[in-house]
Amino acid sequence: MLRTRLDLDRIRAARRAIDPMFLDTPLYECEALGRALGCAVSIKLETANPVRSFKGRGTELVASGLRDHGRTAAVCASAGNLGWALGWSGRRHGLDVTVVASHRAPAAKLDRIRALGTALELVDGDFDMARQRAAAIARERGIRLVEDSLDIETCEGAATIGLELAERASSFDAVLIALGGGAMATGVGHVLKALAPGVDVICVQPEGAPAMTRSFRQRRVVTTDSTDTIADGVAGRHPIPAVLDDLLQVADDAVLAQEASIVTGMRMLLRHAGLVVEPSAALGVAAVLEDPDRFAGRRLVTIICGSNVDLDAYHHWTRP
Amino acid sequence: MLRTRLDLDRIRAARRAIDPMFLDTPLYECEALGRALGCAVSIKLETANPVRSFKGRGTELVASGLRDHGRTAAVCASAGNLGWALGWSGRRHGLDVTVVASHRAPAAKLDRIRALGTALELVDGDFDMARQRAAAIARERGIRLVEDSLDIETCEGAATIGLELAERASSFDAVLIALGGGAMATGVGHVLKALAPGVDVICVQPEGAPAMTRSFRQRRVVTTDSTDTIADGVAGRHPIPAVLDDLLQVADDAVLAQEASIVTGMRMLLRHAGLVVEPSAALGVAAVLEDPDRFAGRRLVTIICGSNVDLDAYHHWTRP
Repeated sequence: MLRTRLDLDRIRAARRAIDPMFLDTPLYECEALGRALGCAVSIKLETANPVRSFKGRGTELVASGLRDHGRTAAVCASAGNLGWALGWSGRRHGLDVTVVASHRAPAAKLDRIRALGTALELVDGDFDMARQRAAAIARERGIRLVEDSLDIETCEGAATIGLELAERASSFDAVLIALGGGAMATGVGHVLKALAPGVDVICVQPEGAPAMTRSFRQRRVVTTDSTDTIADGVAGRHPIPAVLDDLLQVADDAVLAQEASIVTGMRMLLRHAGLVVEPSAALGVAAVLEDPDRFAGRRLVTIICGSNVDLDAYHHWTRP
Repeated sequence: MLRTRLDLDRIRAARRAIDPMFLDTPLYECEALGRALGCAVSIKLETANPVRSFKGRGTELVASGLRDHGRTAAVCASAGNLGWALGWSGRRHGLDVTVVASHRAPAAKLDRIRALGTALELVDGDFDMARQRAAAIARERGIRLVEDSLDIETCEGAATIGLELAERASSFDAVLIALGGGAMATGVGHVLKALAPGVDVICVQPEGAPAMTRSFRQRRVVTTDSTDTIADGVAGRHPIPAVLDDLLQVADDAVLAQEASIVTGMRMLLRHAGLVVEPSAALGVAAVLEDPDRFAGRRLVTIICGSNVDLDAYHHWTRP
């Protein structure tokens, strides 16, 4: 019996509050990528929607819940994807959304947040600095602070990916999940452990932002002083204790990937699958590249969690 | 009353014979692309499947039908996408498939056909030469010749896209469809004219391969001596009379796009939507670029019909 913060009935109910545009995303085998990696690889594509990442699943839940309770505003810290998604869902549900981001966040992500008409505040620091500023705004204005991975809706939204994977669980034996704050890993992991316990749940984090993976291995919160990775979407320093507790129950493993493998992963997804992805979305492929023997001949799913990338940086990483 | 070769009940029934992996593809608005084009643009994404184009919808019908009738082999001419899709569906349904392609077809498409174990024969000529050779093989071996756009299954398969669009027809007022042989245009067009007659059906063909568009405008078959376009997927010289007859009933217009607009369209789909597409899939955006006044402020859907592109050529077209 799983004892996480997540609940299967609530996750099933969550589907009804999410714009169908974010649900039932493509899941298909990419044989060319599998041949290149020495295993069978299926892609769960979370980028073909208005905000180009899986975050809309969670923000739809947050925004519909706030609207149902008569609330009119929310604030979040975001590396970019949560902010865009919350801005999008907020507009749809009539909420006044403020996003706080690091000035280091990709310009493309920030431009899209601004284009929604969402208020955007930049801080001179990293994601954890943005979190502190967002919390201060929430206190000052008495509005809802949306905290990725801590707020259960963000995990439940991501968990709906797990429902879709569980329906096809006979066709794979491991799922590779990008690990940042842990919403996607705990959400998807909870559903798979409940409905398809034979499927390995393997989390992948950059070596340059290893706090949650170290915490998982040591079974206690381990923080880091800094992050150094191109995978901006998963670069946190302070794991949330409640999320770690859940992760320890639902993940089979957490591994680290080098920056070079993330870049090669992006190149392979472009070459073999025709997909432009942000660095976080290449972590699954990167994990296979780093330990090919472990994955040889296995049937894997990798969740392509986002495609919001600065094209100039992308061209630099992937040019022939 | 539409009097085409297509039938709504048959199209609805077709969904049951198609691997669900090809159905219910993403349809979502891309605001960044719309801002850049001066209208609202939604994307119908037909590339997130094992063969990276919409052709699997039709080949699933062909292959399941052959299997149901105890047939064991088929041959087709293909610029690449039909061949890959027929090879994929043939393998799934236990058929021996031969594909005849022009040696000018993109290497990436040909490699993927070979990787399936499908027999591949290259001819020293263009697509219409490949068609003649495929017909000869069918006669010699007494096997089914699959002819794109002429064979009703290829139109019915494409028409299932129309069913999915019709469900959301209140959210747009025109659909832009790449025009080659005409399977997609007649299939989608038939369904929209039957179920959502207010939606404009606008076909787009390259100026370098204008045979079907000229035929549409002159209401009789017009052939050309050659083609000259990067949009290999739609480069035919000999329109099929029965397909033209259908097109004349279901299309509101057929327009031509210059090569430069196709290239710009590919660049815009990459920059604003994060999508790698083959040239044919950029024809819709190209049409807007060529006649912005016509489309200003309208709500458009463009069908992204394929992403099978040689990356070297793609980089050349889209590099900053």
